[in-house]
Amino acid sequence: MTDRRPEFQGEQFEKGLQIRREVLGDAYVDRSIAAADDVSAPLQKLLTEWCWGEIWSRPGLERRMRSVLNLGMLMALNRSDEFKLHVRGALNNGVTREEIVEIILQGAIYCGAPASLDALRSAKAVFAEIDAATTQVSQR
Amino acid sequence: MTDRRPEFQGEQFEKGLQIRREVLGDAYVDRSIAAADDVSAPLQKLLTEWCWGEIWSRPGLERRMRSVLNLGMLMALNRSDEFKLHVRGALNNGVTREEIVEIILQGAIYCGAPASLDALRSAKAVFAEIDAATTQVSQR
Amino acid sequence: MTDRRPEFQGEQFEKGLQIRREVLGDAYVDRSIAAADDVSAPLQKLLTEWCWGEIWSRPGLERRMRSVLNLGMLMALNRSDEFKLHVRGALNNGVTREEIVEIILQGAIYCGAPASLDALRSAKAVFAEIDAATTQVSQR
Amino acid sequence: MTDRRPEFQGEQFEKGLQIRREVLGDAYVDRSIAAADDVSAPLQKLLTEWCWGEIWSRPGLERRMRSVLNLGMLMALNRSDEFKLHVRGALNNGVTREEIVEIILQGAIYCGAPASLDALRSAKAVFAEIDAATTQVSQR
Amino acid sequence: MTDRRPEFQGEQFEKGLQIRREVLGDAYVDRSIAAADDVSAPLQKLLTEWCWGEIWSRPGLERRMRSVLNLGMLMALNRSDEFKLHVRGALNNGVTREEIVEIILQGAIYCGAPASLDALRSAKAVFAEIDAATTQVSQR
Amino acid sequence: MTDRRPEFQGEQFEKGLQIRREVLGDAYVDRSIAAADDVSAPLQKLLTEWCWGEIWSRPGLERRMRSVLNLGMLMALNRSDEFKLHVRGALNNGVTREEIVEIILQGAIYCGAPASLDALRSAKAVFAEIDAATTQVSQR
Repeated sequence: MTDRRPEFQGEQFEKGLQIRREVLGDAYVDRSIAAADDVSAPLQKLLTEWCWGEIWSRPGLERRMRSVLNLGMLMALNRSDEFKLHVRGALNNGVTREEIVEIILQGAIYCGAPASLDALRSAKAVFAEIDAATTQVSQR
Repeated sequence: MTDRRPEFQGEQFEKGLQIRREVLGDAYVDRSIAAADDVSAPLQKLLTEWCWGEIWSRPGLERRMRSVLNLGMLMALNRSDEFKLHVRGALNNGVTREEIVEIILQGAIYCGAPASLDALRSAKAVFAEIDAATTQVSQR
Repeated sequence: MTDRRPEFQGEQFEKGLQIRREVLGDAYVDRSIAAADDVSAPLQKLLTEWCWGEIWSRPGLERRMRSVLNLGMLMALNRSDEFKLHVRGALNNGVTREEIVEIILQGAIYCGAPASLDALRSAKAVFAEIDAATTQVSQR
Repeated sequence: MTDRRPEFQGEQFEKGLQIRREVLGDAYVDRSIAAADDVSAPLQKLLTEWCWGEIWSRPGLERRMRSVLNLGMLMALNRSDEFKLHVRGALNNGVTREEIVEIILQGAIYCGAPASLDALRSAKAVFAEIDAATTQVSQR
Repeated sequence: MTDRRPEFQGEQFEKGLQIRREVLGDAYVDRSIAAADDVSAPLQKLLTEWCWGEIWSRPGLERRMRSVLNLGMLMALNRSDEFKLHVRGALNNGVTREEIVEIILQGAIYCGAPASLDALRSAKAVFAEIDAATTQVSQR
Repeated sequence: MTDRRPEFQGEQFEKGLQIRREVLGDAYVDRSIAAADDVSAPLQKLLTEWCWGEIWSRPGLERRMRSVLNLGMLMALNRSDEFKLHVRGALNNGVTREEIVEIILQGAIYCGAPASLDALRSAKAVFAEIDAATTQVSQR
């Protein structure tokens, strides 16, 4: 960690990074930290501290709930990259694939069919990536 | 029930109406059914059957989760009337006021501060209505 | 018309104003023109010329179609004041109340239930205003 | 049809599938049905029954109108995959390419220029696909 | 300040509160702080620290620019309460009424006419409130 | 220019084209004009005249401000193609890369983290394209 960028330091950043790792996985977070440059570092820093260090670390709502909430907001907001990321996060937090399908079905009623169909495509893509990675590992 | 509109009949409608009552309360649902006219009845019918009879009745996601999901989607979609309705629904489904505040705080990160502030105003209005009704009842 | 604001002049403005009157009614347009001040006049001018003088005057799509299109866009965009205005416009362009209800039902599928419910409330409010005005007139 | 998934059965599903075929074409619908798996089947089933079996089958609004409405909603909702699909549907329902361009021009006023430009790109892509397929067929 | 809520303390909060006062005015901020209760305090705290203490305090973009940016985002996001607040903020930061009208005209092109018309209504309401308050003061 | 399409003529179009060139660059505008066909020409014409000939040519707001405003609106509206285009425009109008990063950071607060992250990806892509083009030129 000695070679980490100077703004990627401090108690609040470490706290956020730890939770971010637990939810999104080490591989993703390591790539994200390594890829940071002068353009992306300020946003990375703030979101790690605020989103992960503050909001996701609050004890008032269990992580599984936070994942369900996020999938709903991201489906409604039409942000498929973040939605995909939080499909992984939801699985890591104990939301099952079947529950993710239920979330998307409920989205059809409240966000409309196109939002639901886009979310389903994203979820299927993530499930396929995970299955492909699992197969590779098990075939070694 | 003998005087209910003809389209407000059938197994799927009854199933939906029952769950809608459990989540949103008898008072709201009775008013809504009584107020239906030729303009609003077709949408009432379809949403009772689809949203409540089909989606909310599916066993794959517990109701507390469905409420959390709804609050997230409705905050993101900027629909304050429906949001308020589902604040009541969430409380009926066992989501606490403290958890609703957590949901709104998480909304600040993902939907932005204005969405979060609007949601907070809505939640406070519902909490105040409930408190006023409770006070009236207890003072009788 | 001699006392109209200087920017509310010219061929393109007159052309737009005429179509706007045909679609939204003289009463609304007269009020809107009379209420214009230095803050609102520039936008009034541009929208009368562009929206009404150019787009609504194009022969390539019949007005009834343009009204249906507008109701769909405005329901999706969550802009209830404009939606209400174009419920009146749609009726003037020959879209029936029954067709407006069908439009809103279709909106439930594509825009989601909350958008559809908000649109229904708006349509009902406009229908009631029109009925009240008609009753007043017929009772004179 | 004997090998179709069990949930893809029943009167309401058949009714929806028929209309969906008429609007979106056999090729698309066949691919969609064949590609369904445990993740996507529940949403496919509900949308076929609700959207196509119920809404699109209602006689109160002609299909050409429903297509115009859909293009407006999907342009506003920023859902380009569904927009493209319904450009095809609109053409099948008798909306001309020239009318689709008019719809997109009107979208510039109400949804804003970026929505209109994205819709135009999508429409051009669909027109080009159709022209390429027609050329292939005619060259055989 | 000795009677301020415990969470409304600390260096970052004070820094944010100071900038918030400079932009939105003492009257608004005092009311907002005084009205805070257990439901609204957590969000108030976070937004004062993040939005005002961190983002608005960054030297990399002059405040006038930040106000212009905010009016654009809030017009697009359809959040009229926040938009009105930042019309006041923009005026305090040196954006003129004429520039605010220009911002709204540009919004007509990019966000669409309905967003622009809603923003104009909001701006006119704020201008009128300010004029009314000024008249009252000058008549004392 | 003698071979330009007939609708791409006239004083207002020339005025708009000139400003569009100054903001978005000759290369982009030349490509765009050359690529116009019967499907895209009507929208090109209207946007060149309205957006560039009218709005961007108004003296009431300096171009740097208009660029900042546009980046805010486009980030909020979730339109990444137009956002990228106006990152270039902003740089041409004197907004620095550092200021664009500040704009995106402020977007995290008001539009939410996913909007901000998408905007950052888009800005980085444009910066990289510009750097690659500069390197190619300097290596000749």
